Amino acid sequence: MVKRWTEILTDTCRGNSARESEWELDSGNFSPAPDPPWSVRRRPLHGGKQEGVELLELDNGRMSLTIVPTRGMNVLHAHCDGIRLGFDSPVHEVVHPRWIQHETRGGRGWLEGFNELMCRCGLENTGASGYDLIPGGAEEEELFLPLHGRISNTPARRVWFRCELEPPYRLTVGGEVRDARMFGPSYSLVTEISTLPGASEFEIHDEIAVAGGKAAELELLYHCNFGTPVLGDGSRLVAPVKTMTARDKVALEGLGEWDRFGPPQAGFEEQCYYFTLYGDDQGRTTVALVEPQRQFAVRAEFPLDRLPAFTLWKNTEAEADGYVAGLEPGTDYPNPRRFERDKGRVVRLEPGRPFRSGITIGLTGGSGNVGALCEKIDQMAVCEPDICSTIDGEFAPVVADNR
Amino acid sequence: MVKRWTEILTDTCRGNSARESEWELDSGNFSPAPDPPWSVRRRPLHGGKQEGVELLELDNGRMSLTIVPTRGMNVLHAHCDGIRLGFDSPVHEVVHPRWIQHETRGGRGWLEGFNELMCRCGLENTGASGYDLIPGGAEEEELFLPLHGRISNTPARRVWFRCELEPPYRLTVGGEVRDARMFGPSYSLVTEISTLPGASEFEIHDEIAVAGGKAAELELLYHCNFGTPVLGDGSRLVAPVKTMTARDKVALEGLGEWDRFGPPQAGFEEQCYYFTLYGDDQGRTTVALVEPQRQFAVRAEFPLDRLPAFTLWKNTEAEADGYVAGLEPGTDYPNPRRFERDKGRVVRLEPGRPFRSGITIGLTGGSGNVGALCEKIDQMAVCEPDICSTIDGEFAPVVADNR
Amino acid sequence: MVKRWTEILTDTCRGNSARESEWELDSGNFSPAPDPPWSVRRRPLHGGKQEGVELLELDNGRMSLTIVPTRGMNVLHAHCDGIRLGFDSPVHEVVHPRWIQHETRGGRGWLEGFNELMCRCGLENTGASGYDLIPGGAEEEELFLPLHGRISNTPARRVWFRCELEPPYRLTVGGEVRDARMFGPSYSLVTEISTLPGASEFEIHDEIAVAGGKAAELELLYHCNFGTPVLGDGSRLVAPVKTMTARDKVALEGLGEWDRFGPPQAGFEEQCYYFTLYGDDQGRTTVALVEPQRQFAVRAEFPLDRLPAFTLWKNTEAEADGYVAGLEPGTDYPNPRRFERDKGRVVRLEPGRPFRSGITIGLTGGSGNVGALCEKIDQMAVCEPDICSTIDGEFAPVVADNR
Repeated sequence: MVKRWTEILTDTCRGNSARESEWELDSGNFSPAPDPPWSVRRRPLHGGKQEGVELLELDNGRMSLTIVPTRGMNVLHAHCDGIRLGFDSPVHEVVHPRWIQHETRGGRGWLEGFNELMCRCGLENTGASGYDLIPGGAEEEELFLPLHGRISNTPARRVWFRCELEPPYRLTVGGEVRDARMFGPSYSLVTEISTLPGASEFEIHDEIAVAGGKAAELELLYHCNFGTPVLGDGSRLVAPVKTMTARDKVALEGLGEWDRFGPPQAGFEEQCYYFTLYGDDQGRTTVALVEPQRQFAVRAEFPLDRLPAFTLWKNTEAEADGYVAGLEPGTDYPNPRRFERDKGRVVRLEPGRPFRSGITIGLTGGSGNVGALCEKIDQMAVCEPDICSTIDGEFAPVVADNR
Repeated sequence: MVKRWTEILTDTCRGNSARESEWELDSGNFSPAPDPPWSVRRRPLHGGKQEGVELLELDNGRMSLTIVPTRGMNVLHAHCDGIRLGFDSPVHEVVHPRWIQHETRGGRGWLEGFNELMCRCGLENTGASGYDLIPGGAEEEELFLPLHGRISNTPARRVWFRCELEPPYRLTVGGEVRDARMFGPSYSLVTEISTLPGASEFEIHDEIAVAGGKAAELELLYHCNFGTPVLGDGSRLVAPVKTMTARDKVALEGLGEWDRFGPPQAGFEEQCYYFTLYGDDQGRTTVALVEPQRQFAVRAEFPLDRLPAFTLWKNTEAEADGYVAGLEPGTDYPNPRRFERDKGRVVRLEPGRPFRSGITIGLTGGSGNVGALCEKIDQMAVCEPDICSTIDGEFAPVVADNR
Repeated sequence: MVKRWTEILTDTCRGNSARESEWELDSGNFSPAPDPPWSVRRRPLHGGKQEGVELLELDNGRMSLTIVPTRGMNVLHAHCDGIRLGFDSPVHEVVHPRWIQHETRGGRGWLEGFNELMCRCGLENTGASGYDLIPGGAEEEELFLPLHGRISNTPARRVWFRCELEPPYRLTVGGEVRDARMFGPSYSLVTEISTLPGASEFEIHDEIAVAGGKAAELELLYHCNFGTPVLGDGSRLVAPVKTMTARDKVALEGLGEWDRFGPPQAGFEEQCYYFTLYGDDQGRTTVALVEPQRQFAVRAEFPLDRLPAFTLWKNTEAEADGYVAGLEPGTDYPNPRRFERDKGRVVRLEPGRPFRSGITIGLTGGSGNVGALCEKIDQMAVCEPDICSTIDGEFAPVVADNR
């Protein structure tokens, strides 16, 4: 086993642990030190809606990640080779989740804290807000499910940092997030976000368990969001598309340019597309967002058996309103849960049988590397994409005027 | 008057008082010191949903109590003679009430903080969530009342500790909790929770007043919850039953074993029974939960004129889901307030005329003492219990399929 | 340009700034010092629902103001010449806005924090809670708007203090409050609250902008509240009334005494009157609340082009319930927004074109000065007031039983 060092940063089980608000550790504390040197730092935020938020900044010597334990172990943004991964939301502060009232504004309170590179949707539901009628069981009743679920606005109750003391010197930030209630459903998410010194990517490994003796439904979606400089006028999405459908009429109008992104445009109405993808021999797939000059791209890699549903969110609004593209692998599509259940896409989480998933997010730099990445993705697509010219009712609820 | 020492721990009227996060006092500070020695300690919690919660731990030398000023002066748990009073909820953290959104999930947000030995329900309503139509007055309109009311998730604005400096050396933690709003209803709860050095019980004395010039309705229920080791396969409830009815069909199915508890059982559906009880000459009554081997029991004593309605909650779910029995004396039953008002059971709280109530919770150890306790309770029951073989519509709303 | 000193007290953009909880500055730090000497102080509050609230106390040597950055830069109270401006609410604590759940109790959660001399209503809506049907745009749907909007319960993300170092030595507390969300509407309020050494008044200057690339609707109302000693049995409102209507039947019953206030009366039902006012040559108007002995009065001055709608709120309830009069200049009346939109009174806020407004609140002391103030107001009223003897449907929704 690799020798390693672990530091517990938060543990609510040790209730009386004094909180050290500032904390820092770097490769200089260890011998031998990897090259390049790394560092990790805990930073409390103050003022406004940020008061009480803690950030963990992990710098592997080339790529820096900012993780938000207070907000469900989301990833606020990353920087690599001078390029920012993330986006500029109209929400400027890192909002403490105590401010989020999920059911406000018709169930869209989640939008008041949304500004991260990677935030999870779920675990109870990932999609649009609305009433669900839960069949059978003790909860055979109407339940209002707010937009994108609660896990992004639940603070980690345990947080740790771990570094390996021998090659490859993996650096890991871990956290446990628990969303629990009497009578359930209660969920536990244990996540480890890791990277290697000098790498241009990071991996997220999640283990989700039902916290109790009863099975529960699970929806999970990784909402990965990119603005400038990766997103620009002429950026392209590259994906090994098996099937695709527009989510609604607005998206249908943009079908011909689904993989191209325009410049910021005030009042642009969001367009969503739902995909199934091809993968490689190991069942993993890759999608990439390539910047207009094809000098660099961001890529997301994930396992198709766990995350078979991929959603593209095009939201090229004015910069001040959030000029952003979302790459969103999920267990299913962000439709109302009742629709997803009918289609058989909601995961059944049994006690003692955790669901494991994850995603790798990386930057590919240099036109040659970008070309090779695109080629690799294209090779996964063994057949021509099957693109639905209308709205495929198997993937999206087709309503009267489809709004 | 007994000589005593008082220390103010929190007082929002002295707005600029610096908060001392840690504080401690023990019998060694006083002379003469009682035997056994006592101690009291304030402890701030950190991390996750606990951040900002304060606990007060009072140890009388035999029994220790953990009181949560941040959560309406609830009692988290107690330990006496090595036995834990309280239960294991799926809610692991001591949740700061700022996380609780009462009206979420159809009005059941209260369940996201529920894990205490004793929490009060009320003061506006104690029962199931739902719409109430308030007759007359300025608020002649529909009002949504969330499950179990707001008082458990309201922080104390004044907290104090007081110890007597001569026999019987009573130790008291006091607090004022105020649930107020413009146009009302506004409530003030002043509670004193006390014990004697070396005792195996504690007393709660509450004074509830309307905070303003207008009368208000009051419902109050002491939700007292016990898991292992008091609750086990074969535990019994002993109570001086005058009348009893099942609350619904699920409870009706378990009517024959209403006073016996089974082992943890995944998916067990909660059963509630509503009682009227006999009391002693002073109008006080006692109920007891006896552990399977009859080696010890917990008891609750309370005044029948103030708390005439007793509810038993059997929830022998899997341990991870909250294996628990609730002994719940109240002003009335935890039905929707509209039903309780129709039955004439809601208290009318007039300005200047506070409502006084309370409960004593204790541990009885040793088979002889347990036997004597049960005998005392049995002697209160001067007649055979009147057990309704259906659902008595005077006590529980009888709905079509009774869910 | 006047020489001045600026100190940044909070800035969430400098995320890692350690929060200095206590801070103080006074005229003794500067030379030459104005006469009388001034001071400003930041004070954190602790305990109960106050925990985490910050106050800024600005004393100009004669008048002291307490500003609440945590609560949208509201003004808690002021004191001048021994007279308190403000009122006694049943809400005793300075409630941290994280406690406020706007949509609770049918959208009236705002009332659980209401106890200030001046709080802004808006910026999305100022009036009664209810569903609005927003025409056109991306949000062509029903939206629930809670009472009085969210701005009063949004914390400032930037706070500063500025003093001029030469005559007139103006003292200014500034703040930026941002109420933002993905997909909007998002608002930015930049306010400066200032006074002069030795003055008996303070000015509020507000600049409100839409934070993004899309236009948004704006409603703004300055809810200015006065209890004893300005309000008493026999106090009078003096205003240059052009037109007036009762809001509802309850107000209509009190029409004959609309400008006179009675003593505290338990169960008094609030009365609201809607006005248009005359102004002076510069388009500014003044209203005054004169205490029974006419020895002093409070006055509010504001620009009619920005704040054409004036509302008087008479709420002479029992003192414990909030004995208070509200002087409320606004962009429009605190009716449901849908009604105000139909009447063409909702402001359209375009990107890059901020809305500027403000109000001056002052104390006038001495019977001579009070007489002169009343005369000045009377002279603005060039015609007799047009007082509607029924409920004018142009100003107030006339419903069946008008409740």
